[in-house]
Amino acid sequence: MSQGEYTAQCDFVLIGAQGDLARRKLLPSLYQLDKAGLLHPDTRIIGAARRDYDHEQYRDVVLENTTSFMSDEICEETWQRFVQRLFFFRLDVDDQATYDAVKAFVGDSQLPSVYYFAMPPATYGTICKGLNQAGLVNDQCRVVLEKPIGKDLESSKVINDQVAEFFDEGQIYRIDHYLGKDTVLNLFALRFANALFTNNWDHNNIDHVQITVAEEVGIEGRWGYFDKAGQMRDMVQNHLLQLLTIIAMEPPVDLDADSVRNEKLKVLKALRPITHTNIDAKTVRGQYSSGFLKGHAVPGYLEEEGANQRSETETFVSIRVDIDNWRWAGVPFYLRTGKRLPSKLSEIVVYFKQQPHNIFAHAYRNLPPNKLTIRLQPNEGVEFQFLNKVPGLDEPMKLQQAKLDLSFSETFANERIADAYERLLYEAMVGNQTLFVSRPEVEQAWTWADSIIEAWQHCGVRAKPYQAGTWGPVSSVALLAKDDRSWHE
Amino acid sequence: MSQGEYTAQCDFVLIGAQGDLARRKLLPSLYQLDKAGLLHPDTRIIGAARRDYDHEQYRDVVLENTTSFMSDEICEETWQRFVQRLFFFRLDVDDQATYDAVKAFVGDSQLPSVYYFAMPPATYGTICKGLNQAGLVNDQCRVVLEKPIGKDLESSKVINDQVAEFFDEGQIYRIDHYLGKDTVLNLFALRFANALFTNNWDHNNIDHVQITVAEEVGIEGRWGYFDKAGQMRDMVQNHLLQLLTIIAMEPPVDLDADSVRNEKLKVLKALRPITHTNIDAKTVRGQYSSGFLKGHAVPGYLEEEGANQRSETETFVSIRVDIDNWRWAGVPFYLRTGKRLPSKLSEIVVYFKQQPHNIFAHAYRNLPPNKLTIRLQPNEGVEFQFLNKVPGLDEPMKLQQAKLDLSFSETFANERIADAYERLLYEAMVGNQTLFVSRPEVEQAWTWADSIIEAWQHCGVRAKPYQAGTWGPVSSVALLAKDDRSWHE
Repeated sequence: MSQGEYTAQCDFVLIGAQGDLARRKLLPSLYQLDKAGLLHPDTRIIGAARRDYDHEQYRDVVLENTTSFMSDEICEETWQRFVQRLFFFRLDVDDQATYDAVKAFVGDSQLPSVYYFAMPPATYGTICKGLNQAGLVNDQCRVVLEKPIGKDLESSKVINDQVAEFFDEGQIYRIDHYLGKDTVLNLFALRFANALFTNNWDHNNIDHVQITVAEEVGIEGRWGYFDKAGQMRDMVQNHLLQLLTIIAMEPPVDLDADSVRNEKLKVLKALRPITHTNIDAKTVRGQYSSGFLKGHAVPGYLEEEGANQRSETETFVSIRVDIDNWRWAGVPFYLRTGKRLPSKLSEIVVYFKQQPHNIFAHAYRNLPPNKLTIRLQPNEGVEFQFLNKVPGLDEPMKLQQAKLDLSFSETFANERIADAYERLLYEAMVGNQTLFVSRPEVEQAWTWADSIIEAWQHCGVRAKPYQAGTWGPVSSVALLAKDDRSWHE
Repeated sequence: MSQGEYTAQCDFVLIGAQGDLARRKLLPSLYQLDKAGLLHPDTRIIGAARRDYDHEQYRDVVLENTTSFMSDEICEETWQRFVQRLFFFRLDVDDQATYDAVKAFVGDSQLPSVYYFAMPPATYGTICKGLNQAGLVNDQCRVVLEKPIGKDLESSKVINDQVAEFFDEGQIYRIDHYLGKDTVLNLFALRFANALFTNNWDHNNIDHVQITVAEEVGIEGRWGYFDKAGQMRDMVQNHLLQLLTIIAMEPPVDLDADSVRNEKLKVLKALRPITHTNIDAKTVRGQYSSGFLKGHAVPGYLEEEGANQRSETETFVSIRVDIDNWRWAGVPFYLRTGKRLPSKLSEIVVYFKQQPHNIFAHAYRNLPPNKLTIRLQPNEGVEFQFLNKVPGLDEPMKLQQAKLDLSFSETFANERIADAYERLLYEAMVGNQTLFVSRPEVEQAWTWADSIIEAWQHCGVRAKPYQAGTWGPVSSVALLAKDDRSWHE
């Protein structure tokens, strides 16, 4: 692998190095980047947390973490290289003195520093101030912020303002890890490298689009945290809207950060607001009750550990989204996400329009439309469903739905499918913002989501119960049924 | 299997019952139709040839033939049913008295008679007269004619006139066995049941189309016969033009014979004539010389048994066809067929237009266009080639051509792929002309083909030698190269 222009060369400062995210995702991802030859020899990785490790102790800790959180075995050669990059400094974000040790270490480096805030957003402002006061902020450095950035437009502005006091927008890398998934990036290839898709990606040819992000898990011990957010803030405002923008955006003139992010922003701006006038027609809120998943009994949301039995937080949302622009007039995008659904599954299904005339009425009274399914997970791949003649004689022209299928794991058997964080860490380290969320995007997404949440409150829309292990409340089926459509199965 | 409205009920009279076609193809196909439950209990199969078999002897002969020319084993239950349908009458087409025995047998039948002429076209007139004189021609009966019908427009008119003297066009079933292939019928499903293909099937979206029918075999002991015809008459005028019409036709209003055949005829009428003014730019003639196929040395066309060493007959043709209508203006259809090519292969490849703008120039300076390949044989199936992102990190957006693939043999593993003759015999027996070639089609195809053959003679265009086991003369490559295209590989 070449160590050319695409090799990441920086001092990577991981603040919150002992947190869950850092240990489970970030350090294994950094190791994988090193293994793939994507880290420049000079690149250093500096852990910072409220611990008293020295460098050697930290290296042992990282080895232990990485071993336990990675499915493949540690490559000894890579590890020997990787371990040399690892350093550790005690950092108490509230203790200015502790920033100085970091400064002493990276201060004279010629490399840009990349500060990854693997910390609660409430601390971002403090950290920025601390870095600045220690003289660690300069034009070269970057910060990487983890979502969620706030819980509504107002709180996101506060956080973004705090960071913006010390860093330009061009230095700020806001992560939505969905943007790092290979299957999501493939949406760019599918849409813009293939004339047959590019030319048919509009209201003339597409009937509607469905985006599903289904979780099998419930609350996983985060009840208190989740209950303050709910599925709308936790999943729709960020991940689902990000998928939506990539599916719906105008073709960007190039893949530069500005070009791509401006087109995505335009989609967010064109989302038809959902307010108290149309909240019932456009959204469904659900909350799981006890049920069965894969044959096992599971508790309801209100029976989970730490639950407040009066909680009305939603664990399921489905929404009919309309995009008021030239391309998508009249084409609904149906979003659906929830916990304790029958399987873990993320997919985008594009339904093309039905044939206007049917010469096979003897075989199909209604010709099923062509359908493009993009499976984000599991079994990552692309599938095009079309009608084909069934070989054989018994009927004059018997048709059957057939699938043109591309499974990534089969087709690219020799390519490891990288974790989303690998891609995103790498992009942050080489300084490419294309796959990070801009502040206007965050704010536009919150504006739209806030309106829904506000309407739910204003109109007293309650989360309807659905049995764990089902696809949400029946009204989610009705949401499409009233448009004479149904969810992809 | 139901024995409902689609069950063939007739007296099937096979004239030329001891010929090669009847023994190898027709009788095994009739047996298969019976096995599939598609022959009505009353249906009889009457062999007629210049032999002195009685019914029992003939049944033994058919059993022997069917066993040896079929790949699967005889099903005893089917055979017991099938053998009861078989009868035999001696028929000397020139001896009127011999028709009377057939008349005595089928004369009082309530079922329509279907006369299959598995005989040289030169005898069609005589047979028609004989049938008529014996009182065997009525409004109900049908005749099935084998190609080739003539060797040019004039001779085809003579034959068609002879038959037309006794039968209406609605009673005449002209076989081109390509129209019975399941993969060819699937073209109707692909084109007209799938909006994404229907809507993009024109000069706005398609760059060009390639149709290849490659034979691996050489002359197979038919030198004398073939040399009088050549590849143009033997393959292009019928099979390749039939494929072309199905690919290029306007969507028919329904699948009725008139609707379909009229649309096909319109394509033939819109073919831009190739004359002595453009013959060199539009066609390539080739003749194979000795070479190697799959590692074996094979003789050249002029070295085959029975060869006239001065023959200039072509064994290879490639043609740029232009269709002067609204749909296909500016979209060339390249046809290619030949003997002693590297493999036996029939396929249609639809090249969609290139993307007008490329945002992946770092990965592909020229984005390869989307391509739909319809494999008629071997490995029958459909394949859509598109660009996909290669999973992985090392380049920002590495693309790769990937295939959405549908293999019939895998997908329809439980469905036997029927022989083309099964379908066509069945359609003739139930009286559906959709898959048979109308007289205007035959004549329009000859008109166009005659012009090319005449221009070759007029301009002294000689067949260029090509080595057996290659894809024809180099000028066939040049034919596309000068349009900045290349043959599908």
